[in-house]
Amino acid sequence: MESAIPEHLRTARTRHRRVPDDYAPPYPSFVARHKSSVERVVMAYFGVQTPGVPSKAAEQAMAWIASYFESNGGPIHWDRARYIDEAGFTNVVTVAYWDDRVKFDGWFAAARDGWTGDRRSIGGFGTFIEVLYPSVDRYETLFSSLGRPEGVAVLADSMSGEVQEHAYWGGMRDRIPLSQTSEMAPSGMAHAIHDGSRIRVIPHDNACLIRSGQDWGDTEASEREMYLKDVEPVLREGMDFLRDNGRSIGCYANRYMTVVTADGTPSEKSYGMSWWKSLSALERWAESHPTHVRIFGAAMKYLSTLGPSAKLRLYHEVTVARADEQFFEYADCHPQTGMLNAVQAADAA
Amino acid sequence: MESAIPEHLRTARTRHRRVPDDYAPPYPSFVARHKSSVERVVMAYFGVQTPGVPSKAAEQAMAWIASYFESNGGPIHWDRARYIDEAGFTNVVTVAYWDDRVKFDGWFAAARDGWTGDRRSIGGFGTFIEVLYPSVDRYETLFSSLGRPEGVAVLADSMSGEVQEHAYWGGMRDRIPLSQTSEMAPSGMAHAIHDGSRIRVIPHDNACLIRSGQDWGDTEASEREMYLKDVEPVLREGMDFLRDNGRSIGCYANRYMTVVTADGTPSEKSYGMSWWKSLSALERWAESHPTHVRIFGAAMKYLSTLGPSAKLRLYHEVTVARADEQFFEYADCHPQTGMLNAVQAADAA
Repeated sequence: MESAIPEHLRTARTRHRRVPDDYAPPYPSFVARHKSSVERVVMAYFGVQTPGVPSKAAEQAMAWIASYFESNGGPIHWDRARYIDEAGFTNVVTVAYWDDRVKFDGWFAAARDGWTGDRRSIGGFGTFIEVLYPSVDRYETLFSSLGRPEGVAVLADSMSGEVQEHAYWGGMRDRIPLSQTSEMAPSGMAHAIHDGSRIRVIPHDNACLIRSGQDWGDTEASEREMYLKDVEPVLREGMDFLRDNGRSIGCYANRYMTVVTADGTPSEKSYGMSWWKSLSALERWAESHPTHVRIFGAAMKYLSTLGPSAKLRLYHEVTVARADEQFFEYADCHPQTGMLNAVQAADAA
Repeated sequence: MESAIPEHLRTARTRHRRVPDDYAPPYPSFVARHKSSVERVVMAYFGVQTPGVPSKAAEQAMAWIASYFESNGGPIHWDRARYIDEAGFTNVVTVAYWDDRVKFDGWFAAARDGWTGDRRSIGGFGTFIEVLYPSVDRYETLFSSLGRPEGVAVLADSMSGEVQEHAYWGGMRDRIPLSQTSEMAPSGMAHAIHDGSRIRVIPHDNACLIRSGQDWGDTEASEREMYLKDVEPVLREGMDFLRDNGRSIGCYANRYMTVVTADGTPSEKSYGMSWWKSLSALERWAESHPTHVRIFGAAMKYLSTLGPSAKLRLYHEVTVARADEQFFEYADCHPQTGMLNAVQAADAA
């Protein structure tokens, strides 16, 4: 049993963990471990938003970003996912990961220009860029099993052994190294800067992003049926709540997406990504919303019962970023897109 | 909105609350407020254990303690409840409350002698005494509504306004004033002292007691049906788990009891009382056991939806006591009774 917080990020605590030192979780979970030389990671979401199925021009944009990923300074890993949003638009989101901010910055200028900027071909579709570049003490990962890293964990040097800080409410916070010394409370107000057809959102401190995924590709027979009939509908209900009503509880936006291949073929993987006013708001929803309470209860039972024989793979990554570790830009997107909701909330306040 | 911790018990914190200062619970709850002159309360459980329905002698013992409560130094409040335990014995538990340790001590000597001691009439039944006398910084209460205090809250000077620290996991701990500065971790080992036919359990530090009650007497029609058909069976399942399997997770004993009148007539009130190795063990069960997760989810939904119109009354009191704030004595009880389980656990260790 090891701490989710790697040794080189442990500090003298001013804040306690929620569990005692002898706490033993009821099933194993694992976290991604970076080399200690990694100081910062980059998670960059490139979205295309179209009124119906993506047009040829939108497809071309996606092909362009995929090819541009291959250029110098491109990401170590990327994947793509799709969903239909609350306004009925199809969104295809391509997320790419780096473990070097300098490399990303060098690569990003032209990518940005091509995606939301002057060089964007006008094709009747919206585009957006949402980027976090957190220092490594400001995010955490969690995996239910080894052998298939997802998201930012693909960048990792290795996976941990069984970690202690999971399977209780508060584990998410306790896995973030900065929780040793900070409450990570939000501060400031988000606002928008209009720049031609683009809107940039200047965020507040300690906004929170979660990417939380599931992979049922390996499940068979009864386990597959259990996931698809018992778990997925409850998960979808929770995701729909956040998408449609999240603003009332501090969730700016939620996308429950199906992972697709580069050519758009759906896989047996999905993930929800949601933007939050604070880690605390995410905690409260997770702990108290009936749909998520049921998801958590089902997952506890499922993983405690099936143990290592479970074929369903679950993972997430959660970041609490400083204002200057966030970048948001939207071009021709509808006003309920992503962090534009944070601005509306701020304007209304 | 006020803190559950009364002003005179607030101290400079070395440990943080689990929620931010702007946390707003989704429904109201209230706590008992003692006069600031009250330094300590006493909760004394007097049990009778019989193989079948209480014998005439057992009934006489219960009548005796009830009459002795009326004598000088007797409790401010008492009530009685009944259940059938895991060994098939009927237990009738009479609990009495004081807010003055000195008064209790003066009263208790003869009560003890009459209940578990030499003056006990031998009648083919077991008796036990379980007492906590916590300082006021070592316990908390919580009520879903005003107007009908139960348990230790009957001693209170008043009830609070709406408190902030509830409706999230960790609220129980955050309401205990000592949580401002202490983890309240258990330490030491319980052991038994045999004294003739009596067994005294010398407990460890920071053992934990919860009394958690429900009163459905005021519910009507659909709310009554919802409680009896949807909530109570789930609650019972959780209580049965703790009674039968609690030892594996740090619950020494659980009694899910029906409150009865002095003459034994069942009321529409029940409460569970359970002894725990630690507050932390209680927290883990409450947060992760499927039955309690369902209870909590149902209660959150129920109280958030019905709001003040809910007629179901819920309350609890939770104490974390020092070893010298606990007293346990068992006479002719079977070995799975109450804190005798703590000793068995200790002996086995």
